[in-house]
Amino acid sequence: MFIRFITTGGTIDKVYFDALSQFEIGDSQVRHILSDGLADFDYEVVPLLQKDSLDMTDEDRGKLHDLIAADDAERYVITHGTDTMSETADVLADLEGKTIVLTGSLSPARFKSSDAIFNIGMAVATAQIAAPGVYIAMSGQVFRAGEVRKNRTENKFEKA
Amino acid sequence: MFIRFITTGGTIDKVYFDALSQFEIGDSQVRHILSDGLADFDYEVVPLLQKDSLDMTDEDRGKLHDLIAADDAERYVITHGTDTMSETADVLADLEGKTIVLTGSLSPARFKSSDAIFNIGMAVATAQIAAPGVYIAMSGQVFRAGEVRKNRTENKFEKA
Amino acid sequence: MFIRFITTGGTIDKVYFDALSQFEIGDSQVRHILSDGLADFDYEVVPLLQKDSLDMTDEDRGKLHDLIAADDAERYVITHGTDTMSETADVLADLEGKTIVLTGSLSPARFKSSDAIFNIGMAVATAQIAAPGVYIAMSGQVFRAGEVRKNRTENKFEKA
Amino acid sequence: MFIRFITTGGTIDKVYFDALSQFEIGDSQVRHILSDGLADFDYEVVPLLQKDSLDMTDEDRGKLHDLIAADDAERYVITHGTDTMSETADVLADLEGKTIVLTGSLSPARFKSSDAIFNIGMAVATAQIAAPGVYIAMSGQVFRAGEVRKNRTENKFEKA
Repeated sequence: MFIRFITTGGTIDKVYFDALSQFEIGDSQVRHILSDGLADFDYEVVPLLQKDSLDMTDEDRGKLHDLIAADDAERYVITHGTDTMSETADVLADLEGKTIVLTGSLSPARFKSSDAIFNIGMAVATAQIAAPGVYIAMSGQVFRAGEVRKNRTENKFEKA
Repeated sequence: MFIRFITTGGTIDKVYFDALSQFEIGDSQVRHILSDGLADFDYEVVPLLQKDSLDMTDEDRGKLHDLIAADDAERYVITHGTDTMSETADVLADLEGKTIVLTGSLSPARFKSSDAIFNIGMAVATAQIAAPGVYIAMSGQVFRAGEVRKNRTENKFEKA
Repeated sequence: MFIRFITTGGTIDKVYFDALSQFEIGDSQVRHILSDGLADFDYEVVPLLQKDSLDMTDEDRGKLHDLIAADDAERYVITHGTDTMSETADVLADLEGKTIVLTGSLSPARFKSSDAIFNIGMAVATAQIAAPGVYIAMSGQVFRAGEVRKNRTENKFEKA
Repeated sequence: MFIRFITTGGTIDKVYFDALSQFEIGDSQVRHILSDGLADFDYEVVPLLQKDSLDMTDEDRGKLHDLIAADDAERYVITHGTDTMSETADVLADLEGKTIVLTGSLSPARFKSSDAIFNIGMAVATAQIAAPGVYIAMSGQVFRAGEVRKNRTENKFEKA
């Protein structure tokens, strides 16, 4: 079993820089999470972007789409900012024969209390056992692309 | 979507009692993990046992089997000690029409670095999307009951 | 032994709000830290301000000064943003007969890896055993007010 | 400022070995704690023993005593099991001209919630600012050797 992880930024990878008194996107936490999770399968992490998902452009999404289209893996986990995760999922929906799972977190993985590890765990299981297609694993649930939105008021993902 | 969690003990729930300089099984960490994971679905936690899995008896496994057989839920996550997790999975294999996922952890959930949260994340996703059957979610992988064993030397789960 | 804690904000209490994709100062972490630290002495926490220390005004410092001057405790720990911690220490220097320790952290207490707990531990010990005066406990060291500055380039406190 | 750390084992350094379903004393957590605490001073860590303090012998205490007596540092932090920490403190009481602080923790440093970091923070501050003598930093307090005991029923340190 092989999973290709592609990291694009978002809250999950945010760090705090005291010098600037602000948050920025830091190195991906995926390897740490898989290591703590004692994950024992083959994988590779491709760091594609380090962006807040509100700043992702059509060009960025195109780049992600083309990377997967040209690649021979069957299973993908994409870490992504939450605000436009469902838009990116829609853009990937035409990719056939691959199980693609987008996830991220509502609080940074570097926090003591974060949904990041739980969400990566969900995504890894989904990438293994779900039929080919595009999924979002957030808020304790596995949604199909096109049937999910972020409810910003309640800060959670729900059926669209 | 509703998941019934059944807790039986094991390393995942171990605490350390300084007074005795020893480890014992404490309250289940499942609720904390689901809360940190921002899981937004209906669930119930049934505390059935608090045992090291080496101490589980046929009677204990029978009790677990009967609880699920008599219950009307369709999705279950069972936290369990790792040493006899696959034996318990085998005992549940005849239960039809239900998706049952066993998980646990190799280091206690109360540790800073533990596979517990990751594993519960995997189990929750598997309970939602896998076909009816019995599964073990450990070592970053989702195994089918009857096709998995704990490799004690390398301290991981692998295909049997 | 009694210590009065006064919280004024700063990085130590920062939380991340995904809805806004930004950091803000949240509830004080002092009680959690003392509870995790199994601290067994009498104390009270006074939440005075919730400010980045760059935003603290002379009026804010005057309020802090007057609160302590009018109070009958002998030992204080003040949590404070790091950028102007030494300025605030200077303003308190004329308060006699009291041991006053300022501390804070360079990364938020809510992070997995943070200097917050360590610094509060240092401050609590200093408040108990140091002679009356004003101190800053940061970067693993206990400095006297007037003899310390934040080195912004290296992001640490050092002798002035 | 230089502090020599001497590690002797105890709960603070305990790890859990799933293979054996038991706890043992692992590598010292002192370096990790100082690193997370952003401690910026010179120090050295001497790993002397890896024992539960109930297993410490007179010979062990003699070895610790002689190590410090023959050494030219002025400040020491000793990590130690809690059950006989005060006995060891008594044995060191005749060492003059040195500030020696014993500390440890009631729950392992590897736990998410532990008094370990807080206690090391207290010990580091005490080693810097206390007059020469032997101290115990536990339960949020700095005690003098000879005036402190562990209350096993309430699992805390208190004035003897």
